[in-house]
Amino acid sequence: MTEFPKTDQNRINRLPRRGYYDRETIYRILDEALICHVGFVENQQPYVIPINFARMGDAIVLHGAKASRLLKHISAGHPVCLEATLVDGLVLARSIFNHSLNFRSVVLFGTGQPVEADQDKLAVLEAITEHLIPGRWREVRLPNQKELDVTSVVSIQIDQASAKIRSGPPGDNEADYALPVWAGVLPLQELPLAPVRDELMAQAVAVPGYITKYSRKQS
Amino acid sequence: MTEFPKTDQNRINRLPRRGYYDRETIYRILDEALICHVGFVENQQPYVIPINFARMGDAIVLHGAKASRLLKHISAGHPVCLEATLVDGLVLARSIFNHSLNFRSVVLFGTGQPVEADQDKLAVLEAITEHLIPGRWREVRLPNQKELDVTSVVSIQIDQASAKIRSGPPGDNEADYALPVWAGVLPLQELPLAPVRDELMAQAVAVPGYITKYSRKQS
Repeated sequence: MTEFPKTDQNRINRLPRRGYYDRETIYRILDEALICHVGFVENQQPYVIPINFARMGDAIVLHGAKASRLLKHISAGHPVCLEATLVDGLVLARSIFNHSLNFRSVVLFGTGQPVEADQDKLAVLEAITEHLIPGRWREVRLPNQKELDVTSVVSIQIDQASAKIRSGPPGDNEADYALPVWAGVLPLQELPLAPVRDELMAQAVAVPGYITKYSRKQS
Repeated sequence: MTEFPKTDQNRINRLPRRGYYDRETIYRILDEALICHVGFVENQQPYVIPINFARMGDAIVLHGAKASRLLKHISAGHPVCLEATLVDGLVLARSIFNHSLNFRSVVLFGTGQPVEADQDKLAVLEAITEHLIPGRWREVRLPNQKELDVTSVVSIQIDQASAKIRSGPPGDNEADYALPVWAGVLPLQELPLAPVRDELMAQAVAVPGYITKYSRKQS
């Protein structure tokens, strides 16, 4: 099944035409996002923590230090909400009321479980590395046993999810179109600047192509 | 008092040297962030919703449609966690284990209350507009009574907050520095592309300077 069912938790109530429930749309946004925002509850108190991640099939995987409170909490199977948002631009209308952002966001719900076997942990670490920097995993020193042992890995099965997307020009009230105001969209994008070489690099190594051509946009 | 007290909720436990509790650091990050991520709890279930915002003194202000479930929930005074994160770069180490992100994040806690008086609502809408696009408010048509009436505004007093910052080059294990791997930082920044003029613009209006020179970075 390629669509997530609509429920009270994931349904887009405001402006439902902006809501999407299909895996393709949702997973594309997740795969482009650098980080996500994990919400959880402890003693009735909500917490939101930013963290990098990867998607593996219908699951989100996270990693961190063994001591991480967030990972311990998720591993214990408490309900989790995870959100990722790409801001695509400022929407400048003739009226304040119609100003907006162009964006693509995903909100998903699930419960986590620990990933324990070394081989499975390595697969997750590879997915998270390749999510951030495709091509990096095969070039650098892989985790040794000691590093693996101090790393916690959790997998969150995606039970419910939806995306919300706004794109395109501003929409203004009919009477406002005559106003002498510049209107349109200022696109925004997370872009790389020039790579900064570590001064402690012993050898003259060329900047890899996956760095010089780095882009979050997917073809 | 310029520092927020450290509590069980806002203390940075992992890598405490990366934690900051002073208003200047925290507010600088909030003021640069385009959007924040609001966490709340309903029936034990955590939710995280992205939203634009502004800071007014020691409060965060949000706006939305009267029907918004998020704003109704916050207005009712339930505890809220709000997070904002700026990703500054990819940190490429010689080992997978030491890969990281350069980032600046804020997590804050508070409770909301509705903003009801028209003048106060207008002040909030101005702050939110100017947070996104400094200079825009005085150029466009301001909200009329009907628009104000369908807009909800809430203010969240910041009770607790902390920031977490990672910057600079990778840190590698001594033995790894000899590896023939490119290491360094790929800086990332949310940058504007060329403005896209609304095709429905009746008049030839020049692109304003606050658009052509748009930048989230603060001087």
